[in-house]
Amino acid sequence: MKSTLIQKLDDKQAIIGIVGLGYVGLPLTIRYCEVGYKVIGFDIDPTKISVLEQGKSYIEHIPGSAIQAAVAQGFEATTDFSRVSEADALIICVPTPLNQYREPDLSFVTNTTDALLPYLRPGQVVSLESTTYPGTTDEELLPRVESTGLKVGENAFLVYSPEREDPGNANFSTCTIPKVCGGFTPACLEVGMALYGQVIDRVVPVSSTRAAELTKLLENIHRAVNIGLVNEMKIVADKMGIDIHEVIRAAATKPFGFVPYYPGPGLGGHCIPIDPFYLTWKAREYGVHTRFIELAGEVNSAMPDYVIAKVGAGLNALKKSINGSRVLALGISYKKNVDDMRESPSVMLMEKLRDLGADVSYSDPHVPIFPKMRRHKFELSSVPLDYETIASYDCVLLATDHDKFDYELIKKAAKLIVDTRGRYLQPSPHIIKA
Amino acid sequence: MKSTLIQKLDDKQAIIGIVGLGYVGLPLTIRYCEVGYKVIGFDIDPTKISVLEQGKSYIEHIPGSAIQAAVAQGFEATTDFSRVSEADALIICVPTPLNQYREPDLSFVTNTTDALLPYLRPGQVVSLESTTYPGTTDEELLPRVESTGLKVGENAFLVYSPEREDPGNANFSTCTIPKVCGGFTPACLEVGMALYGQVIDRVVPVSSTRAAELTKLLENIHRAVNIGLVNEMKIVADKMGIDIHEVIRAAATKPFGFVPYYPGPGLGGHCIPIDPFYLTWKAREYGVHTRFIELAGEVNSAMPDYVIAKVGAGLNALKKSINGSRVLALGISYKKNVDDMRESPSVMLMEKLRDLGADVSYSDPHVPIFPKMRRHKFELSSVPLDYETIASYDCVLLATDHDKFDYELIKKAAKLIVDTRGRYLQPSPHIIKA
Repeated sequence: MKSTLIQKLDDKQAIIGIVGLGYVGLPLTIRYCEVGYKVIGFDIDPTKISVLEQGKSYIEHIPGSAIQAAVAQGFEATTDFSRVSEADALIICVPTPLNQYREPDLSFVTNTTDALLPYLRPGQVVSLESTTYPGTTDEELLPRVESTGLKVGENAFLVYSPEREDPGNANFSTCTIPKVCGGFTPACLEVGMALYGQVIDRVVPVSSTRAAELTKLLENIHRAVNIGLVNEMKIVADKMGIDIHEVIRAAATKPFGFVPYYPGPGLGGHCIPIDPFYLTWKAREYGVHTRFIELAGEVNSAMPDYVIAKVGAGLNALKKSINGSRVLALGISYKKNVDDMRESPSVMLMEKLRDLGADVSYSDPHVPIFPKMRRHKFELSSVPLDYETIASYDCVLLATDHDKFDYELIKKAAKLIVDTRGRYLQPSPHIIKA
Repeated sequence: MKSTLIQKLDDKQAIIGIVGLGYVGLPLTIRYCEVGYKVIGFDIDPTKISVLEQGKSYIEHIPGSAIQAAVAQGFEATTDFSRVSEADALIICVPTPLNQYREPDLSFVTNTTDALLPYLRPGQVVSLESTTYPGTTDEELLPRVESTGLKVGENAFLVYSPEREDPGNANFSTCTIPKVCGGFTPACLEVGMALYGQVIDRVVPVSSTRAAELTKLLENIHRAVNIGLVNEMKIVADKMGIDIHEVIRAAATKPFGFVPYYPGPGLGGHCIPIDPFYLTWKAREYGVHTRFIELAGEVNSAMPDYVIAKVGAGLNALKKSINGSRVLALGISYKKNVDDMRESPSVMLMEKLRDLGADVSYSDPHVPIFPKMRRHKFELSSVPLDYETIASYDCVLLATDHDKFDYELIKKAAKLIVDTRGRYLQPSPHIIKA
């Protein structure tokens, strides 16, 4: 059973089922098609399926041509989970958010797995790619898969292999980012290595699914804590009259032992603000605390209020209140040069300013119209950045420093700039670092 | 005044006075001599002076031949501070420890500065290299220098340029490690750039002495916090039955966004356990807290007790108590492959074990005899590592994983190994990870 499956994977004769066609599943689909596999994509969202069927993309950094090439290679997208039985491999790429009590919400993973169960058959491998706490694969997926009568390690195979997608990263793509893989048994790991071996340049085996799960969490905990640290340092440096961005740039000239992280208006994206708390939650079961994660969460989530206070101070110096002022937010995606709005701190800043009575607009070359979001609503579209427009605002809040902005123009035209990214190196009376 | 001094520095006609001939001052001395400057070295310790006069070194990684070459180039070492007037530049490289209340102890800096004052003359530059809190140069050195009647920025120059020595680092030396420099005035900075420009490949100017002071602190805070984080993660992973070293190695395969730091038995060396609290202390003046630093200090300083508990558990499983057991500590310097004992956690482990009644020995190829230390006393010399000797101990505690150890032999011979460095990758019943 195992060797037949491995042979099929090695020969690219295996059919790959990708479950969840978002930021992770779609690039992975394209990669499998590129090297010659037949891919069936599953998603519960019929609008995604129909966009893909038209050979179009719904993610800015993935071009329509890549979808068309995949379709030409036989890629099909469907909402019909009965086709799961056609696939030899099922790779689960669904979100793992937090609920409103900051606890893991595994419902996408468990519902997806439950949707696969009626159609599983002997000789398949299931791989989970969603970021989650150590133990998820063994404790949640394993009993579900074995409830069908399959025996994992014998006639079914189960691995955990965390996604490492980095939207907008020009230096690395799906295939050049090494991929960690852990199996429930050594046979599972062997199948997992074959599953990814043809599409990823380097697959890194670890001794268990738990080790693989913690690996992904550690990567994002590392980022969350380091960003928390520089955010705290920013506050200390600000009190001492020192520009933290200058200090970080100087420290970054040390060729060993230091890696620069930069402060910002808060944490954004689908990973860094969320993933660490998966470990916090699981650690409680073992009676241990994750104090660095808690502290990072506390410091990072306080940053939007810090920025708002700086906006208030800047306006106050001009004898204005936030209430009634016109504020222009620059950059509303969660990081520069992408259109990804997930957990964007800019949106939180805009909401806080609106709640305080400001008349809020935004400009973002990557987001022409403010999208529908689950918890946020703005009926706005991106303001064009010419001199008169910029000058018409009481305050310009630089939230995400896209390269497409004309920083010289903004500097000349704006009455007041609150710079949360250290973009303006030279001090100027009308620029406040926040 | 300024241009004359800069000219002298550029032409290597300036005489360089290095004050404090330790881990920082001595390599700097050698480097200035190498490029052709005349150097006078000052130290209050006459034994250092006489060792140097014999063309010998008291630091393992600095060979006697380097001292001899410096002497041939005109290097003189002296305890006579009246010769300060001969120097055009005075570079202060003295320790900045903490007192027993974890407050900055600037006495070496202030006493050294006071010792220079009677011999300062117009046309000199004073540079402080000791790690310290933002404001030290302006608040402590400036008033002292100007108390002599000199005017800093006009006929005297004052800079802060933090040392970045990394003993035992084979990839970088004094000249190839970029050096940050801040001046009290722009003229001071100009002189500072000339002072270091001939001996350091890249000098990085910053806008103030405070920015330069915080730069050095940030580098070491970054390390202390990252080590604290992985130490906390080690405890969590251990409870979950996961090997944190395997996880860190797997995470390190991510080619962006993650940098590996490794847990250990505690923090060592002259920088990481100490420097961060310089900022903590100064921040209080501004009413701000450095919570990441405090947390890192707490977690890191708890690690020796964590290790001792693992030793106790390992012995307990063999029906032995720490009290009365023979324990062999491997590696007593604070990091691998060097002889540097400053703040070594190994020594703390040895003391704790001794206090609990263990019969403690050590083996360290870099430290043949346990040196005299200010706060620690062991009348021991390094035990040779043969099979019978290793086998004669109840427990071998791997504290610092020097490359010179024969790990296979240790694994074969030892009854019990407590591995604080993740050196043993494969699980084994007689190896405990701590």
